[in-house]
Amino acid sequence: MQALWLEDRRLAFREDWVLPEAPPGEAVVRVLLAGICNTDLEMVKGYYPFAGVPGHEFVGRVESSPSAPEWIGRRVVGEINAVCGACEACRAGRRSHCERRTVLGIRSRHGAFGERLLLPVANLHEVPASVPDEAACFAEPLAAALQVQEQVAFQSADRVVVVGAGKLGRLVALTLAARLGNVLVVGRDRERLRPLAAQGLRTTTSDAADGSLADGRADVVIECTGNPEGLALAARLVRPRGTIVLKSTYHGEARLDASRLVVNEVTLVGSRCGPFEKALETLARGKLDLGPFVHGRFALRDGLRAFEEASRPGALKVVLDCS
Amino acid sequence: MQALWLEDRRLAFREDWVLPEAPPGEAVVRVLLAGICNTDLEMVKGYYPFAGVPGHEFVGRVESSPSAPEWIGRRVVGEINAVCGACEACRAGRRSHCERRTVLGIRSRHGAFGERLLLPVANLHEVPASVPDEAACFAEPLAAALQVQEQVAFQSADRVVVVGAGKLGRLVALTLAARLGNVLVVGRDRERLRPLAAQGLRTTTSDAADGSLADGRADVVIECTGNPEGLALAARLVRPRGTIVLKSTYHGEARLDASRLVVNEVTLVGSRCGPFEKALETLARGKLDLGPFVHGRFALRDGLRAFEEASRPGALKVVLDCS
Repeated sequence: MQALWLEDRRLAFREDWVLPEAPPGEAVVRVLLAGICNTDLEMVKGYYPFAGVPGHEFVGRVESSPSAPEWIGRRVVGEINAVCGACEACRAGRRSHCERRTVLGIRSRHGAFGERLLLPVANLHEVPASVPDEAACFAEPLAAALQVQEQVAFQSADRVVVVGAGKLGRLVALTLAARLGNVLVVGRDRERLRPLAAQGLRTTTSDAADGSLADGRADVVIECTGNPEGLALAARLVRPRGTIVLKSTYHGEARLDASRLVVNEVTLVGSRCGPFEKALETLARGKLDLGPFVHGRFALRDGLRAFEEASRPGALKVVLDCS
Repeated sequence: MQALWLEDRRLAFREDWVLPEAPPGEAVVRVLLAGICNTDLEMVKGYYPFAGVPGHEFVGRVESSPSAPEWIGRRVVGEINAVCGACEACRAGRRSHCERRTVLGIRSRHGAFGERLLLPVANLHEVPASVPDEAACFAEPLAAALQVQEQVAFQSADRVVVVGAGKLGRLVALTLAARLGNVLVVGRDRERLRPLAAQGLRTTTSDAADGSLADGRADVVIECTGNPEGLALAARLVRPRGTIVLKSTYHGEARLDASRLVVNEVTLVGSRCGPFEKALETLARGKLDLGPFVHGRFALRDGLRAFEEASRPGALKVVLDCS
């Protein structure tokens, strides 16, 4: 079976990969499309020591499901954390923080950059017929973007700044701008911001901290840059008693002026996976224009080239066609 | 007038200091006792560029108060942030974050390490007669300790860890242990922890992360070490979706594994000044044994020696007698 394989920070294309047998409760999903995420790029840099098939954003079709055959043939997306249901975190309702979890394409579970994948049936969500494949494979990052709204009690007048104009920053900004009147995206250069402005978002560059972006004025700042420098900028922009939401995962540590957080009584909230149901509802409403997000589409066998393309500065979503 | 004077990171004792004239609405307070805080020590190291009389923990007696003469003769403690009442933060009810605030002995306002100080009458709180001077000068740090309880909605079963067994860590731990059954203090060495155990607190050393302190198990961790290393330990101890409260202010930056906060969806809350009313109520109840907190008492003219003593590793509260 074709798959991309990551080991010791090296990515390879394999044709001889064999999908493990499905454990009880799990389904075999034929992958249709899979998206390359910043976390995948960071894993190649060594962010997390994973050996196996990477990839965690996908849309597919259930091929076999011995424990729940009614799922066979359904077009699905899937939550990436496979949980034990028995540990303290699971019992306390924090299932995505299961102590024994495996994570699709990230931790102890082969992922979506192959022809097939395994996931517990409990993790699957059927994709509404009106949602095309290319939109459906955004369900996972869109859920992650919507998680911000699960964690922060936004007020309608809040001045919200999204730091980072990449894939995740855009999704966060678009979903917030759909509800709130005052959302500003801060990006590195004008070039990258142009398509966001075309989508109706207010934008500014990080060095143009002018009237539209006075220091210490934002009620909520969402850090989506994917690099350690984003946090310092977020800390500069947030108001006293304001909130910074951290969405970026990357290899390496950030430097933090912790005293400034103390003096200004700022709250920092780490934010990861989000609600798939809400992501699918959003996609089904069809108002989120994901076309401008897709940067390129490659066959699975051209996966290495796809990763190269996805690594280019300013690149947006690169999609692998695994079917 | 006698006072300690801080300038360019040098502390000096002066006899020729002249208190400025009281602006409208402010009172002249004769300082009785003043406490040396970790922030004072950090300011000498350059944490904040202040030139003037430092000191922000005090108890005193009102000597003159033209705008509110009924305060004359009252024994008082005082909130340290003098605010404008007109800026956005003040109007939004975040008065301690006033954009134009001066801060007693920290920012643009001479402090308590002199014979007299000035504060707006609005900042003063009368000390109940039952509270002795030596306890009253703990009102400010005690309020800061109680601020943790204003910011975090503790559950009675929460496993709480206080990192840091110094002055502030002890106050935080004692006030929390008065309400919660599961409070553990982590300190650097056994020597420093012994007096805490004598006050009925559960303690452990940071390298003995044994059964009583499994990694990733605390619901809430309060970081009170006063140094950048405390944050990393706090991040190790807190559970997924748990809360870290930051109380330490120090010169320099901390290093932060931000990705870990993201993956574990941890919340960090900066915490500074707190409710004086509640601090005075706590002191008036008389159940908080502050005797073990006092490390030494010096005359104002021996202030340099007092600072030296307060800087010694493991030192607790050093009090200046300014009367």
